[in-house]
This record gives sequence, C-alpha cells and structure tokens, in this order.
Amino acid sequence: MIILVVNAGSSSLKYQLINMEDESVIAKGNCDRIGIDGHLSHKTASGVKVEKDCDFPTHAEAFSCLVDALTTGEGAVISSMDEISAVGHRVVQGAEVFTKTTLVTDEIIEKIDELRELAPVHNHGHALALWACRKILPNVPQVVVFDTAFHQTIPQKAFMYGFPYEDYEQFHVRKYGFHGTSHRFVTAKLAEIMGKDLKDLKVVSCHLGNGSSITAVQDGKSVDTTMGFTPLDGVLMGTRCGAVDPSAVTYVAGKHGFGVSEMDTYMNKKSGMLGISGKSSDFRDITAAAEAGDKRATLAKDMLVYDIKKDIGAYAAAMNGLDAVIFTGGIGENAPNCREEVCENMEYLGIKIDKAANDFKGELKKISTPDSKVEVWVIPTNEELLIARDTLAMIQK
Amino acid sequence: MIILVVNAGSSSLKYQLINMEDESVIAKGNCDRIGIDGHLSHKTASGVKVEKDCDFPTHAEAFSCLVDALTTGEGAVISSMDEISAVGHRVVQGAEVFTKTTLVTDEIIEKIDELRELAPVHNHGHALALWACRKILPNVPQVVVFDTAFHQTIPQKAFMYGFPYEDYEQFHVRKYGFHGTSHRFVTAKLAEIMGKDLKDLKVVSCHLGNGSSITAVQDGKSVDTTMGFTPLDGVLMGTRCGAVDPSAVTYVAGKHGFGVSEMDTYMNKKSGMLGISGKSSDFRDITAAAEAGDKRATLAKDMLVYDIKKDIGAYAAAMNGLDAVIFTGGIGENAPNCREEVCENMEYLGIKIDKAANDFKGELKKISTPDSKVEVWVIPTNEELLIARDTLAMIQK
Repeated sequence: MIILVVNAGSSSLKYQLINMEDESVIAKGNCDRIGIDGHLSHKTASGVKVEKDCDFPTHAEAFSCLVDALTTGEGAVISSMDEISAVGHRVVQGAEVFTKTTLVTDEIIEKIDELRELAPVHNHGHALALWACRKILPNVPQVVVFDTAFHQTIPQKAFMYGFPYEDYEQFHVRKYGFHGTSHRFVTAKLAEIMGKDLKDLKVVSCHLGNGSSITAVQDGKSVDTTMGFTPLDGVLMGTRCGAVDPSAVTYVAGKHGFGVSEMDTYMNKKSGMLGISGKSSDFRDITAAAEAGDKRATLAKDMLVYDIKKDIGAYAAAMNGLDAVIFTGGIGENAPNCREEVCENMEYLGIKIDKAANDFKGELKKISTPDSKVEVWVIPTNEELLIARDTLAMIQK
Repeated sequence: MIILVVNAGSSSLKYQLINMEDESVIAKGNCDRIGIDGHLSHKTASGVKVEKDCDFPTHAEAFSCLVDALTTGEGAVISSMDEISAVGHRVVQGAEVFTKTTLVTDEIIEKIDELRELAPVHNHGHALALWACRKILPNVPQVVVFDTAFHQTIPQKAFMYGFPYEDYEQFHVRKYGFHGTSHRFVTAKLAEIMGKDLKDLKVVSCHLGNGSSITAVQDGKSVDTTMGFTPLDGVLMGTRCGAVDPSAVTYVAGKHGFGVSEMDTYMNKKSGMLGISGKSSDFRDITAAAEAGDKRATLAKDMLVYDIKKDIGAYAAAMNGLDAVIFTGGIGENAPNCREEVCENMEYLGIKIDKAANDFKGELKKISTPDSKVEVWVIPTNEELLIARDTLAMIQK
C-alpha cells in the first residue's frame, strides 16, 4: 500500500511517497516557484536526485510534473500512479468546521478555500493543489489532515480572546492553534515508548522550529496551545514576534505609519530572533553568536528559553501537574543548549535532566534522569507519516 | 506629621490626608470633572461630608478647592496648609527614567510630562497637578511615586518584546508593568505577617480589580508582571481584553476599518468582561449573572480564573518555586469565588485553601490550610499609605 503525502503552499508543493508496509519513504521532493517560473527537486530512497527547471503557471502543472517525476525517468519509483492507494494532504486551517481528518469531496475543497480568509498564505494553495490532484488522479481517494484539528478540544475559556463576544461569532477570531499533526504524532509516540495510555498522562509538547508552539495534552487531548488565531502568537520565533502587549501593536503601527498588512509583515517577517539579534532567524546562528559573546543574540536565546519555561509552568497549572515534556521540531530535536536551559531550575516541578545524555541531535531519546519526577523526551516529529497513517485509516474505513 | 497624597488623572484629582503618627486617614476626597465643569466630594474621618459643584477650568483651580476643603468650612481638618509636611503624588509611567521614588523639581515635572507619549491618559494630568501644587504650596516638598518603578528590576529577557531591537531603542516599546505600588505594599506586608525576610520568599501577587496584574516577586524584587507596555496586557479585565494574538489586533482592526485610536478604544473600553458577557464590566455583576446561569458571564469568569491560574504557574516556573500567593485589589479582596476557583486543582504546586476560611471580604487573612505548602493570603492593598510612607522617608533623608 503506497500513500502520497502532499504539503502545498501558495507557491510550492512538497511531497513524500510512503510505503505503508514498513512506513518507509520511497521518494520525496518539492515543486517550487509555482506561478513564478518553476523548479523540481526530487530524491529517491536509493539516492537518485533529480533537479530541473520547469514551467509551473499553476499548481496543476506542478502536480503533473510530480507525477512524471515519480513514474518516469531516472527518479521513477513506481510504474504508474495506479500503484498509489490514496493522497493525504496537509491543510493548515480547518477552523471550527473541521475537527478531524476528512475524506475530500468538491464541497470539502470549496469549504477549505472559503477558510482562506483565516489563513491567507496557506488555505488557497491547499485548495489549488486539491483541485489539481482531483483532476489528474480522479479515481484516487484524497484525504485532508488539518493542523488545527487536534486543538479543537481546547475548552472555550482557553480559546477565547477578551474581545467582544459578537466578534468571535462574526469574525471567528479565537485561538485555533497549529502544529496539531506534530503534537499529535509526538504525544502518541511518547505514550507508546513510556508504555502508558496517553489518557493517563499530562504532557507538555514543545514543537520548536522556525515556527514554534507549545501544547498541553491531557486525557489524550489538546487542552491549550500557545499559537493562536494565527501562527504568530506564543513564544519568540525565527522572524515572528510571538506574544506582545496588544497596545504595542497599535503603538508601533502608529509610529511607523503602518497599515494592517505592513504591520502583519513587520510582526511575521522582521521580528522574532531576527529582529532581536539583528543577525539571523536561525537558532544555530543565534547560538553560535551568543557563544561568541554577542549580547543581542544571547538576549534572543534567553527570551525564547524564558518563554518556553513560562509556558511549561502555565500548562502544568492548567493541568494541575505534569508527567512529561517533549522536545521536537528543528530546534527541539537539534539544540541541546535550548533543551538544557529550558529544563534548568525547574526542580520545583520535578524536572531533572542528564546533561551528558542530552548532548545529541535528532534522535528519539530520554534526557531526564531516572529520578526525575517528570520524564523529558526528545522525539523527532514526522508530520508526513501521521498524514499517511490518517489517510490509510480513512480509506480502510 | 501630616502628608497629603494626590492621585491626579486627566480630569480628576483624588486626595488623602494622612496622619503619619498612626497612619490614619484624616480626610479624603476627589475633585472631579476638571476641564468640564467641576465637582468636589470631601469626607473627614469624623464623618463630615461635603459635596459641591465648582468651576475647575484646570488642575490649579481644583487644587485650590482641595486646599479650601481641608482648611475651611465644615469639612476642615487642619487650620492651614502649613501643617502639611509634604505632598506625595502617584505617577503612572516612570518608564526607564525613574526607578525609584523621587523628590520633585521643575525638571522632574517636565520629564514626567515628556513621558506622556507612553501614558497618554495619565502622565500629563500628573504633571498638571504637580505644577498646580508647586504653585499653590511653593514651600512644601513634593515627592513622586511611580507605578512602574517597582518593576524596573525585571530582567531584559522578560521585559523585551519580539519586535526589532531598534524599535525598543527608538520607541521605548517594552514591558513596564503597573500597579507597582500595590504589589510592593502587599508583598512587604506579607513578609511582615509571615515573620520572614521578603528576600527569602518567592511570591506571586495578584492585584485583581477593574484593571488587574499578576507579579512575580523574588529576592524582594519584581521579576515579571503581566501588564506590559500599557495596562492593557495580561489577564482579562473589566473592559480591557488582556493578552491576544497580535495578529488578532490587526485582523479585527481591518475587519472594522479601525485606525490606531479606534482600535485602542475597542481593546481598552469595549472588551474584557464587558465584551465577553455583554452585560457588565463589574465582577460582582458577572458573578451574580453566572450564578443565575448566564453562559457568557460564566465564560468571562472562567476566562479570568484560567488566566490567573496560568500566570501563577508561569511565575512559579520563572522563580523555580512558590512560597506564597497574595490576592488583593477590588476583586482579590472581595470575591471569595474568584480566589477559590483560582486555587482549586493546584495541588501540584502545594496550594490548598480552606474554603470556609476563604468566605469573607476585605480583610487581611490567610486562606490556605495549615498543611498547604504555599501560603495563600488576602491582603487589602493601600497604595496611598505606601505613597505617604515613601514621601515621609524621602523628606526625612
């Protein structure tokens, strides 16, 4: 059984072909620069790499090119698309409409496209890819997995903002949360490796990357998360500011004479670790500069660490306790210094990590000491695999 | 020794006359509607009340009227202003300029007025009152006590926002925190009644009223607080939204077509418990409506309680532990239901309250059980008294 996983943006279409017998990746790649010119990067499990410039006026041409790459030429891994049982698509924003993984129909695609108001950069790209896929592979079932769906269990007291209630009803302004697929993957994995039922665990999952979110999982369900209406809220990120006084938004917009869209660009692209350090949005660069004595890079690192610490504390309060902390995502998996600093001085919660055991990158490993009351794990995330699993489960129903 | 304490706003001038021998209030009142028409309310310790309509074109006339009320007529409590040793003024915003209580000079008043950019509603009113007071009582020393000064010990990683660093330098956009006088008063009182040195305690102080802020106090110093650049950030308040995704600010502004000042009004005056409940900004009304089954009032109450819980948890993480929680302010002192719900399900921190002992209003009292690891206290705040004490200490130097 082979599943194609598609992660489409407004101008790109990433894919993975997964063999569900052993959950191995057969091939993966990216159709980039859709609507601009076009470029394909394709790589097979056996190591064959294909790079070529293409013409991608729309997502449809990109999807055709992906089909060609998988079935013809030196990077071919299947003889025809008939070998694919289903396609699983990542969708960023499901809002309150989609609370779980869903089988695609025309109506579903239309609904996803309607939600683009709430995720301007993403949902329309998803819809375009879904239409293209439906046209080119009319007989292959398609499934959509939403970043927000896992967080639809967050109680109202935690997802509401303090704006007039009517604006929640009219504009759907509330906390949605993102990275749901990742948080779901790593918390399920945690329960498996701890040999426990996830329903019996109170977990804080820290997905830390260019975008970061922290999620509280209790009774197997997301009960709170730091990203909000959009992926801007929460901790300091690569180029995103994270949480700020709402008055600071209007004040800075007024000072710069920014309108809504300029202010959104400022907060999403010019802020975060990049804005604080003035150097880089990449945590590896920030760490290197901090180690070399750069004060603003040190500040950026310290701000991120402090934000994460406070969120772990806040969610321990929300759940009345804590059994485990997970680190995942690019920073969570690969930055031992970040993990160490977050877990330092957290004895009050019973967190104790083994600094030597923590000194590694990108593996599934426990980093807490045997006598730590709270288990701390690094669990590499795999959103594509979860989408493939969800897709398989859906078509087997 | 008699001290006059003045709390001036843009259109009002509240005052208390305090006898420092026994720290008793001799008289207090308010000159209201300055610049509109004018009204004086005056009350003496012996129960004499004076109410009269006046003409207050500026703060100067209001201050003269205050002098008259204290020295002449049936509400007189002193024979002349010569009996007053000093005047202590509350000032909301001291920014990074004023880190402690300061003796007033012309330059100091000018500097306070310059900071009005950062506190448009307040600082200019303070400056006007200071000039008026200096003119009418040229030989009486004046002292200014800042709401923000107590929070100037907050470390940079906690006071910075994730905006470009240059905008912190240029526009001074950072967390300042407010209610510093109240947090300082109640934490000092806590140490006194616990018979400990405040430096040995990790405390979370919850000042809950129409405006609310939660502060972490460690080593006797504020190390973090929920209000930020302005008093809008943090927990849900009477009419203020508290923390929201920064993108929600631009989104809602765009939807309503609001400019900066309309959006500020929306977030400061139309939001919070009033906006959520659609009924009232007053926690007593919210509680009554919630008890009568009103869903939106219940939601407003639950949101506030949940916010406070998370902040207590976050600050326990920031300090690596917690010795005591303080409730103060209008809601903190008078809403047993709020205190009970905040402290419920916090056993993981060692918080255990005695529900029967908690059933009271407006007293200094411990509400935690004898075996609670964390002591929980209700401590009525008294900002005017702290201003008077600071003023006395300053003139005795």
